[in-house]
Amino acid sequence: MNLLYALDLLGTAAFAASGALAGVRRNMDLFGVLVLGLVTATGGGTIRDLLLGDTPPFIFKNETYLYLSLCISLAVFLFHRSLDMLHHPLLYFDAVGLGTFVVIGTSKAIAFHMEFIGCVMMGVMTAIAGGMVRDMLSTHVPLVLQKEVYASACVVGGALLYLLHFTTLPDNYASVIAALAVILLRLLAIRYHWSLPRAAHH
Amino acid sequence: MNLLYALDLLGTAAFAASGALAGVRRNMDLFGVLVLGLVTATGGGTIRDLLLGDTPPFIFKNETYLYLSLCISLAVFLFHRSLDMLHHPLLYFDAVGLGTFVVIGTSKAIAFHMEFIGCVMMGVMTAIAGGMVRDMLSTHVPLVLQKEVYASACVVGGALLYLLHFTTLPDNYASVIAALAVILLRLLAIRYHWSLPRAAHH
Amino acid sequence: MNLLYALDLLGTAAFAASGALAGVRRNMDLFGVLVLGLVTATGGGTIRDLLLGDTPPFIFKNETYLYLSLCISLAVFLFHRSLDMLHHPLLYFDAVGLGTFVVIGTSKAIAFHMEFIGCVMMGVMTAIAGGMVRDMLSTHVPLVLQKEVYASACVVGGALLYLLHFTTLPDNYASVIAALAVILLRLLAIRYHWSLPRAAHH
Repeated sequence: MNLLYALDLLGTAAFAASGALAGVRRNMDLFGVLVLGLVTATGGGTIRDLLLGDTPPFIFKNETYLYLSLCISLAVFLFHRSLDMLHHPLLYFDAVGLGTFVVIGTSKAIAFHMEFIGCVMMGVMTAIAGGMVRDMLSTHVPLVLQKEVYASACVVGGALLYLLHFTTLPDNYASVIAALAVILLRLLAIRYHWSLPRAAHH
Repeated sequence: MNLLYALDLLGTAAFAASGALAGVRRNMDLFGVLVLGLVTATGGGTIRDLLLGDTPPFIFKNETYLYLSLCISLAVFLFHRSLDMLHHPLLYFDAVGLGTFVVIGTSKAIAFHMEFIGCVMMGVMTAIAGGMVRDMLSTHVPLVLQKEVYASACVVGGALLYLLHFTTLPDNYASVIAALAVILLRLLAIRYHWSLPRAAHH
Repeated sequence: MNLLYALDLLGTAAFAASGALAGVRRNMDLFGVLVLGLVTATGGGTIRDLLLGDTPPFIFKNETYLYLSLCISLAVFLFHRSLDMLHHPLLYFDAVGLGTFVVIGTSKAIAFHMEFIGCVMMGVMTAIAGGMVRDMLSTHVPLVLQKEVYASACVVGGALLYLLHFTTLPDNYASVIAALAVILLRLLAIRYHWSLPRAAHH
């Protein structure tokens, strides 16, 4: 469980950094950059908890996530010029966060006795809803609706975890396998520029 | 009650189709099209349930709505070229969905002992909030804020149902009357291009 | 407490007026203007109550806020030409609303036993989230993320109230001091065109 928590914090930091960077690029002020970092890192889990009826959401039960997101966002605001060299590592940390968030969200939904699609949706939402709100706050169509294998890697991981839950495999192993599946799919998608098909619109 | 459920599913399917079509037109990928269909069909009722504190929302208690929305959205993604002939029927199904959703939302709010404006808002929100989120996800100003007698037909139906609830009329009849009022107003608005007034802005 | 309620209604009216004006300027129809007024005035407190798990939100427990917001929005829709002379007073009423909303939100979060950042966030959210949704509904990047000392005045007031709560100062005095701090900061920011720094993006 400690490993999961460590990965959770790593993912939170990576998501906060990418959100804050988006705020800097869109020329927001300090408050805007902090809000975008915070929303990207914690928005998905917050919406999941609202839908599960588990209020107040996790961020208010353990404020570590809030302090971490705000500190990372502030650091990005101050030092973003020096962070260019972090661009590539950030993509990998983001993939790790993606896998971890899917596992946390899906597991929580299983514990709340939700059914198949509900569990998968909770996992996917934990991972991507924060980034969608970030994009909507800066009036961009959410990236995940448009291209790349990003959300679909989360769908696969969430479905896999739900199915493994009904085998005799210990939950710890199931979590690791599902998280690795998401991370691997995502890294392959980055490496080979995989995209989902679009409708042949004319 | 079985009729109401059948109309509810018909409305859900019509809303999912219109959401998925919007996704196709805005050049989203498969995941985006599925999300837009799902959000349009089930977003309004989900927000209503969050506001009523009735969590998890209805879609997670009976996953039929989720499967139906996803299947319809997938069909739109695959066969949208052949669906042009469905354009006109879709407008009518949408009107039926509108009336049904208003009745379901307002009835639920009455059962939760909300007051007048609250009940009307819940009915209207059930019917239109999904479409508003669909528009925000594609960075369009929600259509219902701009033109046509669409939301206002819902306001009339919700208010009517609330008032009829305090007469001796059986609830079933009240529901049918309110739903028909919404559907009729909406069809007249389509036929005669009715719009709400705008402020004489200069 | 009666003073706080009076200021709360004044702030609600000022927020509704600014929201409805935005709807008129963006050429929305009557329904759109009413929605923008309502959302701006009551959206922040509604989101706060959802996050606190206090459902249904305050607006449905005392419909005064809804009637007030709708009446003010309707008045703006009808008479907005004559309201130009109200432009300056509106800025001051808005500042009063800001201070009042921060105090109400932070106090409620303290009563719900939230921690430091959570309490400040609830105060800030009560004051600014309605305006953010208003901007998103009209596909503008929320103003508060971009410029001016607006949200940051709320952060100061919320933090001040949280800290004063742990002194021997009676809660009434603490509330007045925190509200005045927000209002004063906001008025100074208007007077001297204060802005938060932006990242030196190139």
